[in-house]
Amino acid sequence: MPAEFTSLLETFDNPFPERAYEIETVCPEFTSLCPKTGQPDFGTLTIIYSPAAKCFELKSLKLYLQQYRNHGAFYERVTNEILDDLVGVTQPRWMTIHAAFTPRGGIRTNVIVTHGERPRS
Amino acid sequence: MPAEFTSLLETFDNPFPERAYEIETVCPEFTSLCPKTGQPDFGTLTIIYSPAAKCFELKSLKLYLQQYRNHGAFYERVTNEILDDLVGVTQPRWMTIHAAFTPRGGIRTNVIVTHGERPRS
Amino acid sequence: MPAEFTSLLETFDNPFPERAYEIETVCPEFTSLCPKTGQPDFGTLTIIYSPAAKCFELKSLKLYLQQYRNHGAFYERVTNEILDDLVGVTQPRWMTIHAAFTPRGGIRTNVIVTHGERPRS
Amino acid sequence: MPAEFTSLLETFDNPFPERAYEIETVCPEFTSLCPKTGQPDFGTLTIIYSPAAKCFELKSLKLYLQQYRNHGAFYERVTNEILDDLVGVTQPRWMTIHAAFTPRGGIRTNVIVTHGERPRS
Amino acid sequence: MPAEFTSLLETFDNPFPERAYEIETVCPEFTSLCPKTGQPDFGTLTIIYSPAAKCFELKSLKLYLQQYRNHGAFYERVTNEILDDLVGVTQPRWMTIHAAFTPRGGIRTNVIVTHGERPRS
Amino acid sequence: MPAEFTSLLETFDNPFPERAYEIETVCPEFTSLCPKTGQPDFGTLTIIYSPAAKCFELKSLKLYLQQYRNHGAFYERVTNEILDDLVGVTQPRWMTIHAAFTPRGGIRTNVIVTHGERPRS
Amino acid sequence: MPAEFTSLLETFDNPFPERAYEIETVCPEFTSLCPKTGQPDFGTLTIIYSPAAKCFELKSLKLYLQQYRNHGAFYERVTNEILDDLVGVTQPRWMTIHAAFTPRGGIRTNVIVTHGERPRS
Amino acid sequence: MPAEFTSLLETFDNPFPERAYEIETVCPEFTSLCPKTGQPDFGTLTIIYSPAAKCFELKSLKLYLQQYRNHGAFYERVTNEILDDLVGVTQPRWMTIHAAFTPRGGIRTNVIVTHGERPRS
Amino acid sequence: MPAEFTSLLETFDNPFPERAYEIETVCPEFTSLCPKTGQPDFGTLTIIYSPAAKCFELKSLKLYLQQYRNHGAFYERVTNEILDDLVGVTQPRWMTIHAAFTPRGGIRTNVIVTHGERPRS
Amino acid sequence: MPAEFTSLLETFDNPFPERAYEIETVCPEFTSLCPKTGQPDFGTLTIIYSPAAKCFELKSLKLYLQQYRNHGAFYERVTNEILDDLVGVTQPRWMTIHAAFTPRGGIRTNVIVTHGERPRS
Repeated sequence: MPAEFTSLLETFDNPFPERAYEIETVCPEFTSLCPKTGQPDFGTLTIIYSPAAKCFELKSLKLYLQQYRNHGAFYERVTNEILDDLVGVTQPRWMTIHAAFTPRGGIRTNVIVTHGERPRS
Repeated sequence: MPAEFTSLLETFDNPFPERAYEIETVCPEFTSLCPKTGQPDFGTLTIIYSPAAKCFELKSLKLYLQQYRNHGAFYERVTNEILDDLVGVTQPRWMTIHAAFTPRGGIRTNVIVTHGERPRS
Repeated sequence: MPAEFTSLLETFDNPFPERAYEIETVCPEFTSLCPKTGQPDFGTLTIIYSPAAKCFELKSLKLYLQQYRNHGAFYERVTNEILDDLVGVTQPRWMTIHAAFTPRGGIRTNVIVTHGERPRS
Repeated sequence: MPAEFTSLLETFDNPFPERAYEIETVCPEFTSLCPKTGQPDFGTLTIIYSPAAKCFELKSLKLYLQQYRNHGAFYERVTNEILDDLVGVTQPRWMTIHAAFTPRGGIRTNVIVTHGERPRS
Repeated sequence: MPAEFTSLLETFDNPFPERAYEIETVCPEFTSLCPKTGQPDFGTLTIIYSPAAKCFELKSLKLYLQQYRNHGAFYERVTNEILDDLVGVTQPRWMTIHAAFTPRGGIRTNVIVTHGERPRS
Repeated sequence: MPAEFTSLLETFDNPFPERAYEIETVCPEFTSLCPKTGQPDFGTLTIIYSPAAKCFELKSLKLYLQQYRNHGAFYERVTNEILDDLVGVTQPRWMTIHAAFTPRGGIRTNVIVTHGERPRS
Repeated sequence: MPAEFTSLLETFDNPFPERAYEIETVCPEFTSLCPKTGQPDFGTLTIIYSPAAKCFELKSLKLYLQQYRNHGAFYERVTNEILDDLVGVTQPRWMTIHAAFTPRGGIRTNVIVTHGERPRS
Repeated sequence: MPAEFTSLLETFDNPFPERAYEIETVCPEFTSLCPKTGQPDFGTLTIIYSPAAKCFELKSLKLYLQQYRNHGAFYERVTNEILDDLVGVTQPRWMTIHAAFTPRGGIRTNVIVTHGERPRS
Repeated sequence: MPAEFTSLLETFDNPFPERAYEIETVCPEFTSLCPKTGQPDFGTLTIIYSPAAKCFELKSLKLYLQQYRNHGAFYERVTNEILDDLVGVTQPRWMTIHAAFTPRGGIRTNVIVTHGERPRS
Repeated sequence: MPAEFTSLLETFDNPFPERAYEIETVCPEFTSLCPKTGQPDFGTLTIIYSPAAKCFELKSLKLYLQQYRNHGAFYERVTNEILDDLVGVTQPRWMTIHAAFTPRGGIRTNVIVTHGERPRS
C-alpha cells in the first residue's frame, strides 16, 4: 500500500496509560481488489491491542481502511502491512490482527498477525 | 464521571470470604452519550470478580450504571473508570470488566480492563 | 439452608476410584426464593467433579435441590453452601459449581465456586 | 459388560506410527438400558486418541457399541469400561472419551475419562 | 496418493518471512473415494500454518485437492499424506491439518495431524 | 385451580381500543407440581391476544402465575384454565396460549389453546 | 408391527373436549431395527393432534414406542402404522406425525403423515 | 408523547410510487422510561411499510425516536403512538410496527400494531 | 444427463397408497462438474413428494445421484432433469426438489422445481 | 444508475421454459456509495424469479452488480432499479429482490420489491 495511506490515521492520548488493558475493534466492511484478477475481495478485520501512550481514533481507522477499496492487495501482505501501519502510529504494548476473508473458489482464508507479546492480565 | 456517582454503590459482607470464588454479572442495558456528538451509545458490561471482604449489591449497581444515561463518556475512559469505582468500594482479589459497545460507522469496539491477578482455582 | 437438607443426599461407591475422571451434571431446574422480596429465583447449576471413593446419586441430588423450592437463598451464599454439602458427602478430588441465574432488573448473575485443585488429565 | 464384548473390536496398522497425531470419532447413537429401571438410555460418545501401533476399525467399533443396546449399564461404569476396552486393543499413546447422556428427571450428565497423557503438538 | 500429485502445488515467496504469523485455509469441498467400497467420501480440511520462506498458492491448492476426487483414500492416511505434501513444498515453521469427514454408519470422524511446534505469539 | 386464583389478576383500559393490535407476553418461569408424583414441572407460557376494552397488567399476571408454584396441575388442564381466566378478565377479541413444558422421561409436550378468531391485519 | 403393540397405549378423558386445541408431543428417542440389515435406526417423532373425547397418556406412549426397540420397521410403514394406532385409541379431530430419521449413507429422510383436517383456530 | 415530537420527522419523495414495494427498518436502540417507576425500558422496533407518495428519512427517524430517551411511555401506548406519527407523515399504503421489549420481572412483552391492509405482491 | 442414468433408480410399493402423506429426503452430498470450466460443483438436494403407487428406494437414489460425479451439469438443467427422472419412475401425486448449490464467485444459487399440486393435508 | 450498466447483463435460454420453477440467487457482496456522504454502503441482495424464455447468467450478474462499487445509490432507488434492469433483460413470469443493508447509525434497513405475481406451485 502506498506510504501516504497512514497519513489519515489519527491517535489520541490513552486515558489510562499505566494499565495494560485491551481494546478490540471489529471492522466487517473491509474490501480491496485482487491484484491478479481485479475482482473485489471482502473481509472482516479484528484488531486487538494493549495501548501504551496512544490509541487510534475509530473514525480515522475507518477512513484509513476505506483507502483499500480500489487498491490491489494480497491477503497475506495487506494484513501484515495494516499491522505495521497501526503499530507505527500507536506504538502499543502488543497488537494482533485477525483478518477473515470471504470464500473464493470454494476456499476460505484467514490471516493472523501479531506484534509484541500480550501482557498478562 | 463525577466523583459523586459512586455514592450510589452499596456493598454487603462476602458470606464466604475465605474461598477465592468468582461472581459474574452481565449488564446488557448500559447507555451513555458520546461526548463529541451527543448521540446515545449502548453497550453490554460483563463484570467478573473474586470478592474479598465485600460484594457489590446488584440493585445499587443498576442505579449506579443508570447515572451514565445522560452523561458524556468515551468508551476507553468510562470502562476504566467503572473498574476503578467498583474496585474502590469492594477491594476485590481480582476484577475484570468486558465492555462490548454496539456498532458505529460499521465498526464495533470492546474494551477489556482488569485489576489484580486472577486467583487460580 | 438448614443442616437437615443434606440428609437426602445419597452416594454410591465410585466404580473406578483409581482413575481421576470427571462427572459433569447439569441441573437447569433449580429454583428458590429471594430472601428480600419473597419472589422466586431460577437458575441452572452445572456441577463438575472428580470423584474419589464416592459419587453422589442423581435422583437424590434432584430431591436435595428441590428442598430450595420454598426456601430463601441469596445467590452467592446458596452456591457456596451447595458446594460444601456435595463436598461433605462425596469428599471428591476436586469439585466446581457454576450457577447461572435468570435476569433480574435487566442484570444477570453467575456464581462460580471451586473446591480443591483439578487433577491434570 | 461381558468380557466377550471386545471380541468384535478390530484394529488396523497405524499408517503413520511415528507421528503423534489424533483421531476423533463421534458416535451419537449409543444406547443401553438402565440397570435399575430397565428403561433405555441414550448418549453420544466422543472418542479422541493418539494411536501408537494400532487404530480401531470404525465398522467394528459400531458393532462393538451396538452390543450395549439390550445391556444394563450405569453411566460412570460403562464409560470407564469402554475406555478400558479400546485402550486394551489399541494401546494408544493417549485416549479420552466424553460421554454425553440425554436428560433424565430434568438432569443431564456427562462422564469424561482419560488414559495416559496427551502428546504435545 | 501418487507422487505426481504434488506437481500441481505452487508456492510464492512469503512477503513477511521475518514474522511468525499464521495463515488458516478452510477447504469444505474435499472429496475422495473409499478404497474398500468405492463410495465417495466428503470432508472439510482446515489447514493452519506459520510460513517460513514460502506460502502455498490457493488456486494450486484447490487443483491439488481435486486430484483426490476419483482416488481411493483412507481418512487417517490421506490426512497425513496431505500434510507431508504441503510441508514438503512450503517447509513451514509449523503446520496443522484438521480433517472433518461426513458421517458414515452413524459415526463421524476427524483426523488432526501436526508438523513442528507452533511458534508462540 | 381454585377460583380465587383470578382475584390477583388486574387490568387496565386499552389505550387504543378501536385498533385490532396484538400483545405478546412470554413467561419462561412458569412452574407447578405434577398431581400424580408431586414433582415440580416447568414451562414457558407465550400469551398472544388482541385486546378489546381491557389489557391485563403484567405484574399482576406474574403474581397470578406464581400461585401455581405449589399447586398440582396437569399440562392440558392448566393451559386451558389459564386461558379461561385471562379471557374472563380481559374479554379480548382473540387470545392464544402456547405452553411449552420441559422434557419428562425423554418426551417433551406443548399445549396450544385459542379463544375466538384472530382479527385480520 | 404386531397388533398387540397398542395394548400398552392408555388414554384419559380430554378435560376440555368442547375446545379444538392442540397437543404437541416430541419423542427424540425413537429407535427400531432396519428389516433389511438388522442395524438400528434412530428418529425423532413429533405428534400433534387436536383431541376429541380422549388424550393419550404420555408414559404409556413412551412404553408403546419402546416396543419398536428390537422390532424391524421401514420408515414409511412404521410412521403410518403409529398414526393408525394413535388415531385408533384417541379418535382425534385431527392428528399429524412428523418422523425425522438420522442419516444413513449420507441421506436423511423424514416422513409426514396426517389424519383428518386441522381445525381452524 | 408530546405533539411536538413529530416535528423532527422528515420525509422524501418515494422514487417508485407506482410500485407497492416494502421498506423494513430495524431500530434496536429504542429506550424510554417507565411512567410508574421511572426506570429505563429498552426495546427493538421493527417498522415495515409500503410507501405511497412519501418515505420517512432514516436519520430523522433516529432523532425522532431519541426523544423518548427521557420520556415516560407505556409499551402498548407508545407503540400505537409511534405508528400514528409515522402514518401521519408518510400516509403509506400499509404499515406495521413490531416492538420487542427487554424482560422485566422474568416476563418479556412484544406489541404489534398495524395500519391498513398489506398490498399483495 | 444420459438416458441410461435412470436405469439405477429402483422403486417399491407404497405401503399406504390410499393416504396422501409426504416423504422428505435430504441429500447433502451431490456433486457434479461445471460444463464450462470442468470444475466440481457441490449441492444439497431436498426432495419432497407425496407418493402414489410407488416410492423410490433410498440406496438406489444414492447410486443414481452418484452418476453425476464426473458429469457436466448446469444448475437449472440438472435440477429439472432429476425431477423428471424421479417423477418418471414414481408417478407421484406431487413432487418438489430444492437444490442448494455452494457459493461460486461470491454468489450462491438455489433452484426450486415442482411437479403437480401438493395435496392438502 | 447509468443506462449503460445493463449492457453487462447476459442471458441464456431457459432449458425448461414450460415449467414455472424458481431460481434464487444470493449476492452477499453488494457495495455502493451513499450519495449524501460518499461513504460506502454494503448489502446482501437475494433475487428470486420464475424464468420465462430467458435466465440471467451468474457471472454477468456479478459484473453488473460490481458497477455499483463506486456509484452513488440510495437504498430504495437502487433496489427498484436493479429489479427493473433484471426484469428488462429476462422478462420473467415473476421476480422479487430482497435487499438487506448493513446497519448505519444503529438502524438497519431492508427493501423488498416485486414484479408480477408469483406462479402457484
